[in-house]
Formats: sequence, structure tokens, C-alpha cells
Amino acid sequence: MPERVYNFFAGPATLPYDVVKEASKGVVNFSNMGMSIMEVSHRSAQFDSMFCETQKNMLNIMGLSEDEYAVLFLGGGASTQFCAVPFNFLKNGMTADYVVTGGWAKKAVKEAKFFGDVNIAASSEDANFSYIPKKFNLTPGAAYVHTTSNNTLVGTQMKNFPETGDVPMVCDMSSGFLSRKLDFSKFSLIYAGAQKNIGPAGVVAVIIRRSWADQANKEVPTMLSYATHLGKNSLFNTPPALPVYVVGLVMKWILEQGGLEAVETANVKKAGLLYSYMDDSNGFYRGTAEKDSRSLMNVTFRLPSEELEKKFIAEGAENDLIGLKGHRSVGGCRASIYNAMPYEGVEALVEFMKKFKAAN
Amino acid sequence: MPERVYNFFAGPATLPYDVVKEASKGVVNFSNMGMSIMEVSHRSAQFDSMFCETQKNMLNIMGLSEDEYAVLFLGGGASTQFCAVPFNFLKNGMTADYVVTGGWAKKAVKEAKFFGDVNIAASSEDANFSYIPKKFNLTPGAAYVHTTSNNTLVGTQMKNFPETGDVPMVCDMSSGFLSRKLDFSKFSLIYAGAQKNIGPAGVVAVIIRRSWADQANKEVPTMLSYATHLGKNSLFNTPPALPVYVVGLVMKWILEQGGLEAVETANVKKAGLLYSYMDDSNGFYRGTAEKDSRSLMNVTFRLPSEELEKKFIAEGAENDLIGLKGHRSVGGCRASIYNAMPYEGVEALVEFMKKFKAAN
Repeated sequence: MPERVYNFFAGPATLPYDVVKEASKGVVNFSNMGMSIMEVSHRSAQFDSMFCETQKNMLNIMGLSEDEYAVLFLGGGASTQFCAVPFNFLKNGMTADYVVTGGWAKKAVKEAKFFGDVNIAASSEDANFSYIPKKFNLTPGAAYVHTTSNNTLVGTQMKNFPETGDVPMVCDMSSGFLSRKLDFSKFSLIYAGAQKNIGPAGVVAVIIRRSWADQANKEVPTMLSYATHLGKNSLFNTPPALPVYVVGLVMKWILEQGGLEAVETANVKKAGLLYSYMDDSNGFYRGTAEKDSRSLMNVTFRLPSEELEKKFIAEGAENDLIGLKGHRSVGGCRASIYNAMPYEGVEALVEFMKKFKAAN
Repeated sequence: MPERVYNFFAGPATLPYDVVKEASKGVVNFSNMGMSIMEVSHRSAQFDSMFCETQKNMLNIMGLSEDEYAVLFLGGGASTQFCAVPFNFLKNGMTADYVVTGGWAKKAVKEAKFFGDVNIAASSEDANFSYIPKKFNLTPGAAYVHTTSNNTLVGTQMKNFPETGDVPMVCDMSSGFLSRKLDFSKFSLIYAGAQKNIGPAGVVAVIIRRSWADQANKEVPTMLSYATHLGKNSLFNTPPALPVYVVGLVMKWILEQGGLEAVETANVKKAGLLYSYMDDSNGFYRGTAEKDSRSLMNVTFRLPSEELEKKFIAEGAENDLIGLKGHRSVGGCRASIYNAMPYEGVEALVEFMKKFKAAN
């Protein structure tokens, strides 16, 4: 293996190489303290400074103010948020609206039903989630509306979010977080597992509107209560220090790129190259998502046969293009091209796809 | 600052330097895959191999069999286990016994009360938790008995656990995990935040008796249910990959030391050096824990005045002895001398203590 391959895994996923190299230094000696970021107390001044800077940078990138929003760095992954959101906000006698655009959204619904009534405001399950619904059957006075910004398994992305008026909107942004410009102020709570676009596994970023957090249920176990973490600026207990540190490095990297506008431009260019080639391949590479619902992050496609798909994935790996297998629940192929995937990586993939098509 | 200091932080805490250096390599290129351990899919063969080996090594070190016990690597810290244990095992109409030996045990009680009846089987709060109770008022047929093996804040350690007969025993071993030989088969569930003795923050190890897990409540949110994680060998969702990887390196390090017997011998020697000197200091350094309850991990002590304590902590730091401040809730001084603290570190501390005493 070369020192560095092109990594198309869906998550954990590729990170900016400069971030990887910098993290490796902090793993030995953080902030010139003579100890690793893994060894430093989360109550030390140096850790606190890094932690708060990371929170500030994330809000800056999103165009949100610290007065209005807080950033929490929690453990347990986005899957734990599936349960924390209704535990805190699905109050007795109320209904929560869920827009079901993929397998992860379905899991979120399952947890919400544990706590109260759920209305499926829209679903594309009838077509294997290959499109994003455009009409939403919203409940007046719902506790909240839950959405998913990008669907990793099926390669779709929500372009137009529901207009929820006074009803708070929640969004699972795990696989598309900070990949494009959005009006983030539309959301009252955003959560994102870090391991797609903003860092390593082991931390989930929760961006929460302070005024909504104040209205949460009081009878919630301590660690699942957003109020607990808000009250201690996300340092109620020991945070996942090293994952947060790497998220901090990624936030700096995004700012260095020129923020979300620049990041989105690069992502549009990368996805454009790949989708255009697929569309011009005379059906050899068939995208599985409806064109107007295509994801900038996860490009899902099929080949003429499952045998060819297997061969494609294996030969890709031999050419240092790793992780092209689709999710086991849907099969096929998938190239995840998150923020950190360089344009050259997509070029190399398209070159390989051309050769593979010619040879098969 | 030198490249490496002696780090007496209570957690996150010092790790073996060889582990730190090895981790730094894996952060750039894991298992010769051409990508970081932060970037590799948790569904890849290489990750799976590391993950399972870590589980096996941990059980080996504890002398437990894979048939009887499972190892889970979860997020959310030990604090989340305070709630998960009663959620799963404090059934309707039953009582859970809690032995309250410190601030963390109190927090565990608070969560359990959310789910059912709690009996305080013993408490040393009357004496600021400076000793470990020897008598336990156990409830016949209790759901479980909850204990804490080591109390980080007050520097005590449980030597003799209650005899619970048929009642399952649960233990929060966060701050003393794998620091000494124990009959681990006495416990039905052990949990330990990694950031004291076995790795970085961001992962909690849960060692659970399979037959007890089978008896858990069914109505538990997915991510808080032990059955969920057992059913997928702790890979139901993306695990905190990097923290687990470092835990794996620490397990190898413990085996290289000669296992728990060798680790305990080293810890007894280190703690002996420090406590002996304190006891011979004519009351200048006064240990706060009763002698028969003293911790091998966290050595807590006071100086003649708070002014001297402040000076001691500051001058210690100037001498590259970092993190000697006691927990903010109890004050005073504390030297955490976990497995990874070399004997030379304790020697350096004692030398400094001698000089400081002579000068003040």
C-alpha cells in the first residue's frame, strides 16, 4: 500500500491529510504541554481554549450567533440523538412529524415512537428512498419536525426543507454537515456524527437553539438532557477529547478553504464530474437516485450485473481506490466524496471507471 | 516545556509513552492501509480484527471467558452507564442497592432513583467519604448491588467487596480498572470510562455477563439497551474507533508488563513510596483517606495551609510535575499515579515534596 490512498468509505471517512498529520503531532504533544491530547485534563486552560475555539469556529462557519445557539460535543453517536430528541422534546399529548428519506430516518422514527405519537409527514420508502419528497403533511402545533439532510445509504440529499413556521425543525445532518451553504437558522436543533465530514468517530456535534432547549422536558436522565450539557458548556463530564480536537482542526481547515461557499463550490465540481461521466456511460454506470435528489456526498450507482460490481470494487481497491462497496442493506456501489476528498481523487476514480468499462 | 512531563492529572491521565507514540503512527496510517485509524470503515476487515483482538485481550487480562462475558465499547462515558444500568436492570417493584463511597456513586444513585427504588446499602458520606464502609445493609432479592472500586475525588479504594450471593453485582471501575488483581467473576456488569487507566476519553468499556444481559428490561431505547450492542458485538453503530484503538494498544502494553499481577506489584510499590514519605513527613503532608482505605491510584493529601497548597501545585508545575491540584469539590492536593505513571515519576514527586517541605 502507498502511504496514502483515495478513501471512498461512507464513514468513518477520509479527512484532510493536513488535519491527519497535525492530529498525529497533537497525539504526542498537545499545545506544547509535554503530554498527548489524550492525556490532558479537560479542566486545563489549554484544553478549554481549544474546546471553546472549536465551538466558536463551528458557529462562525454556520453563520450562527453564540447568543442564540450552543454547540455540544457528546458521545454515543447520532443514534443516541434519535432517542435524546424525543426524550427532551416530544411532550405528553403532542405529535412529532418525521420526514422519512432513508434507513437512518426510519431508525429515528422507531426511537420517537418509544416516547409518543409520530406522524410520518412524508416518505419515499415506496421507491426505495430514491427521491426526496417535495410535499409534507405537517401536523399543526407539532412538537417538532424531524428531517435528514443527506442520506448516506441511498445517495440522496434534501435541497428544500419543509417550511415549518413556528414548529421547531430538527435535522440529522450527519452525512452532509458543513458540505454546503444552508440557512442554518431555520433549525432549532441540528445533530451530526462527526465521522463523515467533520472528524473521527466518537463525537456527535449538537447545535441547539438556546431558547428551545429551555422548553425541554425536565424529567430526563441527566446525560440525555440537553439542559445538563448546556449548563456546563458541554463539559458536564469528560468529553471525547481527542475526537473534539480533530473536529477543531477540521473547522480551521474549512475556514482556510474559504468557508462553506468555497467548500460547496468544490463539492459541486467533484460531484458534477462523477455524475456527468456516469450519465454519459450509456447505462453502464446507472445512478440509483433521482437526478433532482442526488447527493453531493454519496454517489450511489449500479453496474450491469452484481458480478461486475464485485469485480469493480475489488479492482478499484487494487488501484488504491478504497471503499467503493455500497451499504450492505442496498448493495451496488457507492463513492463517498466528502469535503476532504480531493478533486484528484474523483478524477482518479473516473479514469478507473473509464478503463473498467472499456475492459468489461 | 520538555517533550514529556510527569502528568498527575486524575483523568484524562497519563498513558504509557510507547502507546502514545504507537498511536501517533496509527493516526497517520493504520494497519498499512494508507489511511488513518480515524478514516477507516468500522466494517473493514482490518478494523474488525483490531476490535475483536482488543475485546479478547481485555477478557484475558481479567481472566474471564468469552462464553460467559462480553465486552462492549460505548460512548457517553461512565456517566451514561449511571442511567443505562437501572434502565436495563431496575425492574418494576424491585429495589437496587447502592454502596455510596464518593461523589460519583452519588451521581449513580441519582440516576437510579429516576427508574425505581434505591436502598443505600452503605455510605461514608458522614466522614466526607474518607473511608470505605465494611458493613453492607443488603436488600434480599435486590435487582443488583452497585459499587465503585476506586474513588478518584477522595482517594479511597474498595478492598473487600460485598458478598451479594445470588444478587448480581455491578461495579463502576473507571478509576481503578485493570490496576490490580480481582476476582472479576464476582461481577455481573463492570463499566469503566477509559480515560483513567486504559485509554483516552470517549469510550467506556462495559463487561457484561451474557446470562444477566438476557434478563434485561425489553422496553429500553435502542442505544441504551445492552441487548442492542451485544447482538452486534458492539458494532451496532459506529464505535468510537480511535479511542478503542488506543485501548487496544494499552491492553497489549498490560500483557507485555506481565498482566495484572505485575501491574499491581508496580502500583503497590509506587503508592508505597508516596504514602510512606507522607506518613514520615511529621504531618506536613497529611493523607486525607483512612489508611486501610487508601487508593493505589489517587493519592490525596493536604498541606498545612491552603496558601502552601497553592504554592505547592504551582511550583510542582514549574518542575514539570503537572496536575497536582485536588478536585475542585474537595480541594487540597492529589497525585494520580495510574498504571502508566512510571516509578521514576513518583520518585521525582517525592524528591520535590522533600525540597518543598525543607523550604517552607
